[in-house]
Amino acid sequence: MLIVMGAHATSQDVERVCQKIEELGFKAHPMPGASRTAIGLTGNPGPVEPGFFENMPGVVELIQVTHPYKLVSRELKQDNTEITVGDVVIGGQDVVVMAGPCAVESEEQTLRIAEKVRANGAHMFRGGAFKPRTSPYSFQGLGLDGLKILAKAREYTGMPIVTEAIDAETIEMVEEYADVIQIGARNMQNFSLLRAAGLARKPVLLKRGMSATLDDFLLAAEYIMAEGNYQVILCERGIRTFADHTRNTLDLSIVPAVKRISHLPILVDPSHGTGKRHKVAPLSRAAIAVGADGLIIEVHDQPENALSDGPQALLPESFGELMDQIGLLAPVVNRSLSRVQVRL
Amino acid sequence: MLIVMGAHATSQDVERVCQKIEELGFKAHPMPGASRTAIGLTGNPGPVEPGFFENMPGVVELIQVTHPYKLVSRELKQDNTEITVGDVVIGGQDVVVMAGPCAVESEEQTLRIAEKVRANGAHMFRGGAFKPRTSPYSFQGLGLDGLKILAKAREYTGMPIVTEAIDAETIEMVEEYADVIQIGARNMQNFSLLRAAGLARKPVLLKRGMSATLDDFLLAAEYIMAEGNYQVILCERGIRTFADHTRNTLDLSIVPAVKRISHLPILVDPSHGTGKRHKVAPLSRAAIAVGADGLIIEVHDQPENALSDGPQALLPESFGELMDQIGLLAPVVNRSLSRVQVRL
Amino acid sequence: MLIVMGAHATSQDVERVCQKIEELGFKAHPMPGASRTAIGLTGNPGPVEPGFFENMPGVVELIQVTHPYKLVSRELKQDNTEITVGDVVIGGQDVVVMAGPCAVESEEQTLRIAEKVRANGAHMFRGGAFKPRTSPYSFQGLGLDGLKILAKAREYTGMPIVTEAIDAETIEMVEEYADVIQIGARNMQNFSLLRAAGLARKPVLLKRGMSATLDDFLLAAEYIMAEGNYQVILCERGIRTFADHTRNTLDLSIVPAVKRISHLPILVDPSHGTGKRHKVAPLSRAAIAVGADGLIIEVHDQPENALSDGPQALLPESFGELMDQIGLLAPVVNRSLSRVQVRL
Amino acid sequence: MLIVMGAHATSQDVERVCQKIEELGFKAHPMPGASRTAIGLTGNPGPVEPGFFENMPGVVELIQVTHPYKLVSRELKQDNTEITVGDVVIGGQDVVVMAGPCAVESEEQTLRIAEKVRANGAHMFRGGAFKPRTSPYSFQGLGLDGLKILAKAREYTGMPIVTEAIDAETIEMVEEYADVIQIGARNMQNFSLLRAAGLARKPVLLKRGMSATLDDFLLAAEYIMAEGNYQVILCERGIRTFADHTRNTLDLSIVPAVKRISHLPILVDPSHGTGKRHKVAPLSRAAIAVGADGLIIEVHDQPENALSDGPQALLPESFGELMDQIGLLAPVVNRSLSRVQVRL
Repeated sequence: MLIVMGAHATSQDVERVCQKIEELGFKAHPMPGASRTAIGLTGNPGPVEPGFFENMPGVVELIQVTHPYKLVSRELKQDNTEITVGDVVIGGQDVVVMAGPCAVESEEQTLRIAEKVRANGAHMFRGGAFKPRTSPYSFQGLGLDGLKILAKAREYTGMPIVTEAIDAETIEMVEEYADVIQIGARNMQNFSLLRAAGLARKPVLLKRGMSATLDDFLLAAEYIMAEGNYQVILCERGIRTFADHTRNTLDLSIVPAVKRISHLPILVDPSHGTGKRHKVAPLSRAAIAVGADGLIIEVHDQPENALSDGPQALLPESFGELMDQIGLLAPVVNRSLSRVQVRL
Repeated sequence: MLIVMGAHATSQDVERVCQKIEELGFKAHPMPGASRTAIGLTGNPGPVEPGFFENMPGVVELIQVTHPYKLVSRELKQDNTEITVGDVVIGGQDVVVMAGPCAVESEEQTLRIAEKVRANGAHMFRGGAFKPRTSPYSFQGLGLDGLKILAKAREYTGMPIVTEAIDAETIEMVEEYADVIQIGARNMQNFSLLRAAGLARKPVLLKRGMSATLDDFLLAAEYIMAEGNYQVILCERGIRTFADHTRNTLDLSIVPAVKRISHLPILVDPSHGTGKRHKVAPLSRAAIAVGADGLIIEVHDQPENALSDGPQALLPESFGELMDQIGLLAPVVNRSLSRVQVRL
Repeated sequence: MLIVMGAHATSQDVERVCQKIEELGFKAHPMPGASRTAIGLTGNPGPVEPGFFENMPGVVELIQVTHPYKLVSRELKQDNTEITVGDVVIGGQDVVVMAGPCAVESEEQTLRIAEKVRANGAHMFRGGAFKPRTSPYSFQGLGLDGLKILAKAREYTGMPIVTEAIDAETIEMVEEYADVIQIGARNMQNFSLLRAAGLARKPVLLKRGMSATLDDFLLAAEYIMAEGNYQVILCERGIRTFADHTRNTLDLSIVPAVKRISHLPILVDPSHGTGKRHKVAPLSRAAIAVGADGLIIEVHDQPENALSDGPQALLPESFGELMDQIGLLAPVVNRSLSRVQVRL
Repeated sequence: MLIVMGAHATSQDVERVCQKIEELGFKAHPMPGASRTAIGLTGNPGPVEPGFFENMPGVVELIQVTHPYKLVSRELKQDNTEITVGDVVIGGQDVVVMAGPCAVESEEQTLRIAEKVRANGAHMFRGGAFKPRTSPYSFQGLGLDGLKILAKAREYTGMPIVTEAIDAETIEMVEEYADVIQIGARNMQNFSLLRAAGLARKPVLLKRGMSATLDDFLLAAEYIMAEGNYQVILCERGIRTFADHTRNTLDLSIVPAVKRISHLPILVDPSHGTGKRHKVAPLSRAAIAVGADGLIIEVHDQPENALSDGPQALLPESFGELMDQIGLLAPVVNRSLSRVQVRL
C-alpha cells in the first residue's frame, strides 16, 4: 500500500503514519517528493485494512498496490492450467466449442439439437435445467428432469455436459449428472455457491458478473480454488455499459488481461454477450482471434419457438459455418480445432 | 410489443407478421407510416417471446412496451406500503434510520456501538454476521454467534435488528434471530435466495445490484412477493460506473423513479454507495431531500480497527450531527424524524 | 509514480529501473516487500511519461500517484473561490439559482419566461442561443438573434445571463452579450474552446462531460485557468451509465469530491441530469442538501410547445414551489437563499 | 412514436391524446390491450417533440420508434460506401491498415517510423500534429510544422496521411496538408467541427466518443454528410466503462451493428481502445475477425522516449508480425490484405 500525504502535511503527520505502520508490524518507506510525501508500506504479517490510515491527519489518499489473489495467479503457477473433461481438454492446444440450447425444453428437443451440434463439430453440450430468469414469471427450467435429459444427450452423442447450478441444492444434482458445473453471471459473487463449487469434484465454468472488474472475477475464482477445486474455467459473457446496440457489451480485452495474470483457461460466450443472433458469429470469430480457449454458444433449431433467449440462438447450419471459420482462424493464433463430425 | 418493419419490407412481410400474431392468440395492429410500417401486438394469452418475430423477413426491431412486474406496481396497489417492525414503521410519515457497524466483531464492540447509535437516535440496528466479501481471505463474519450478539443488542437497546442472509441455510437463522432479513447487492439476482426470502415471515430489505436496471430491481422484489412475502423494502446502494472518485456511484434518481412506479418503500445506503466517510453525511442529506424513506448507515467508534469497511463508517458523534440535520431536513419534504434519544 | 515489479523480477531488473529513474533526474526509492518490490519515483524535473518504464524487464504495473492539476487545487488556494456576476455571488454564502428555457425561441417567449422565473426568485437567467443537438435536423438555436433577445431579458429583469458558446466564433459573441459563458458537456474536452474561454474576460460555467472522471473534469477547468481566466464555475449534469430510468445518471457525490480537492464553486443541473420533469424537483433538493453552490434549471411555461427538451422543463409554478423548498433547505447546510421576488 | 397510457387512463384521456396527434397533422392508432392502451403515431409532417404528450393526463411513457438518421442509413443506400484515398480504398475488399506514432515529434522520428511501418506493409500513415491532451501541461503537438513533416513522410513513402483536426482553424490546415481529416473521440459531438468537416473536400475519419451510443455515433456522421461530404469513415476506439484492466473498453460489437444499419466503412483503433501495448495485437486480430474494414494503430520504435502515449505503441517488428497475422485472418472473413512491402 502507498499512503499519499497532502502538500500541507507536517513532518509530524508523516512521522505518525510511519509509527503506525511499524506498530502494525509492517515496514515504512517515506519518500519525500517535490511537493508532497508518499509513504510505502511493505511486509506481510497479514492483509492491511485501509481504515488504519484513512483517518490520520495529513493523509489524502491510499493506493492499493498488491492484488489479493494468490491461487489464480501466474506468479504462483506459471504454466497454463489444462482441464480435462472426458476426451476434451480445455486450455490446451485445441480451442473448445460448447454448444446447445439456452434451456432444456424436452427430451425430444434436446436430443435433436444435441445431434445437430455434434454433427457440426461441437465438443461439449450446453443446456440449462435450472434457469435464473430476471422475471419470476418466465420459464425457470425443467430442473432434475432437465438434468436427466442432459445425461441422455451425453450418452447419445458422447459429448460431455455443462449446465448451471444456482444454489447448494442444485449444485449437488448438477455435480452428479453433468461434467462441468456452470456458475452464472448473476451468481459470480454468490460466495456460498462458490464455496460449494470449491468442494465439488467436477470442473467449474465461472461466468464473469455483469459489473465485475478483473480483480472481482479472479477473486471469485480464488474462492473456488481456496476450497480445493483447482479446475476453474473462466468465461467472459458481456458487461453492463451505456451502449444499447447489444444486450451487454462483450469485453474481449479481458482475455489477454486474464492470460497475462492467471494460468486459468478462459472462454467467451458471444450469445449472452450480444443477445443478438446476427452478432454471434462475428464475435465468436473475434473471441478466437483475441486468444480465447474456446466458446460457449447457444444453438436452437427452432429459435422462434424457444422457451428462453430465442433471439440470440444460432441455427445449426449457421453454427456449422461458424465452426468452419473457427477451423481456419485457430491456426492463425497458433491453436487448432479438432473437428470430429460425428454422424449419429 | 411493437414490431418495426424495415423500409424495404413488402406488404407480404407485414401480412405474415400479422398472421403470426393472430396465430399466437394476440391481436395485430398494423400502422403504416411515411417510410415504414410498425405493428402493435396486444392481448394477453400469456407473455410473448421476441423469438417468434425476430427472425421473420422484413422485421428490423422489436420494442417491448409492457413491463413484466405486477405485484410491485403502483397500478396494482396505489397506496404506499408501510412495513411495521417492532415500533418502527418503514414507508410511513417518519423517515427511518438504521445504523451500526459493517460487521459484528464481538459482543463488546456490538453493544458499545449499539448503545451509541441508540443514544444518537437510530431507529434500527444494523450489523453483519454473514459477510459477503470480495476476497476469500477477508473476514467473513462471526456467523451464528454474530446473530446471537445482535439479538442481545436488540434486548439491550430496544432497536429491531437488520442483518444479511447469504443463502438458504443462513436465511433460516437470520429469520429466527433478526427482525428484517437483508439481501445484499451481490445476491440481488440470486433467485433461489429471493424465493427463500419470499417464504420467510419477516420483512426483507433488498439492496439494488451494482448493475441492476430499475426493471431488474423491481423484478427481484417481484420474486419475493410472488412467493407471498409482501413486506419488501428496497435499498439503493450505488452502481458501477466509470467514475472513480467514489467506490460506487450512488444513483439517487432511482428514489423518485421507484416512487412513481411502485408502492414499496425505498431506503438509501450512503456508506456502501460512496465508500468514503466524508461523503456519507452529504449524501445522507441528499437521500432524505430526494424523498427516500430512510437510511442505512455504517457507524463505528473505532473505524481504524474495524475488521471490514472501516473507511466508510461514520463516528458516533458525526452520526449524531447527521441526525440533527435530518431532523431539520425531513419537514421540508413533508416527512418527520422521530428522535427518541434513549440513554441506556 | 510507483513502479511495481513482478514476483519473478531479479535484483538486476530492479537495479535497471532505479538507474533509469536517476538518469531522468528523479530519485528512486526501492521498497522490497514480502513477495515483490515496488519502486517509488519522486522529484520534479517535469512530468514523467509511463512509457519510460512500462517496457522494462520485470515491471508489471505503473501507478500514478500525483494528480496533474495545479490551479484548480485547494492545495494551491485554500479558500473557496467566489465569482461575482452583477449582484450575484457564486460560491459564497448564498446558493444561486439560474433558470430559464432550454432554448431561446422568440423574444416574446423569452421575456415572458424571464419575467416568470424572476418573479419566482431566480437569480440568473439561462437560455440557449447556440444549441448543440445530437441530430443535425433538430432546432439549432437562433444564434446572434438569440443573444440579443437574452440581452433584452437582462435589461428587462435585471438578471445576469448565462448561455452556451460552441466554438471560437460564438464565444466572442457570447462574451459580448452574456455575463457567464457556458461550455456544454459535449465540449468539455474541446480544448480549443477551453483555451478560448481561458482568454475571455467573463466567468465560465463548465459542464462535466458525460464520461468525464473527476480528474478529467478538473483538468478541463485547469485548461481555462492556465490561460489566465480564474473565474470557473463547475457544473454536474449527469453521466452515461447503464441505468435507463433517467436520461443520464446524476452523480451528486462529485459535489463533496470537488469541494475536498478544489476551491472552485460547483452547481448542479438536474434538468439535463435526469431528463424527466418529475425528477427535477427531488434532485434539485438533493443537490442543495449535498452541498452544491447552486442550480441551473430549465423552466418553460409551455413545455408541450418547446422547441427542445420540453419534457425536462419545470412549469413556473413548480419552479416557485421548488424555490420555497430550497429556501427551507439551505439553512440546514449552513447556506442561505436570497429571495428577491421581483414583480415587473 | 408510441404513447403508452396507464392502466387507470380513462377513455377520455385516450381520446384527448388521439385528438392532439391529429391536430399536429399525424395519424393516431389506438391499440387497446388487456390492461392498458398504447397509441401509435405515424405520418411525416416533420419531427415530433415528446413534449407535446409527456404531460397529458393518463400518459405514462413515450417510446421513440424511428431513428433520426437518414444519409448514413443502409435503407437509403444499400451498397457499402468505398472511399478512395490515393491508391488505397477503404471499405472495399481489402482491409486497410493505418499506422504511425501517436504524435509527430520531429522530422527525423517521423520519417524513420514512416519508413519502418511502410516496410512492414502499412497502407496509410498516421501521426498527430494537433494533440488533444487531457492535461494542459502535456505535449500538445508541433502544429503546422507537424503537418509539413507529415507531408514529407507522404512524399518519402507514398503513403496517404491521416491526422487530427481540432477546430475550425486547424481543419483548414489539415485539409490542405493531409489526405484524411481525423475527428477525435473528444470532439465527436463538437458539432461546429463536424459541420466544418462536412464542408471539407477530403474524407473524414470520425472516432466514436467515449460515451456515444450507436445512434449518437451515426448522427455525428450524419452532421458531416448533411453538409455534403459523404466520405465518412467511422472508427471504434473504446468506451468508458467500470472495467479497469484497460484504459477504455473496446466495443467490437459495434462493427456488425454499424454494418447492419449503415453503408459507411468502420475501422478499429486498438491502441487507444486498450491503452496497453500487449493487448494491441490480440484486439487487432479480433477487429479483423469481427469484420472491421481496417485498423489504425500506433507504432513507435522508441516508445520509452515517446512524447505521448508510449505505453500503447507497438514496436515496428511487432507491427510486422501483426500484419502477417492479418494477412492470414482476412481471407477467413472474405477479405484480403494487400501487402506491398515497400523498401525505401
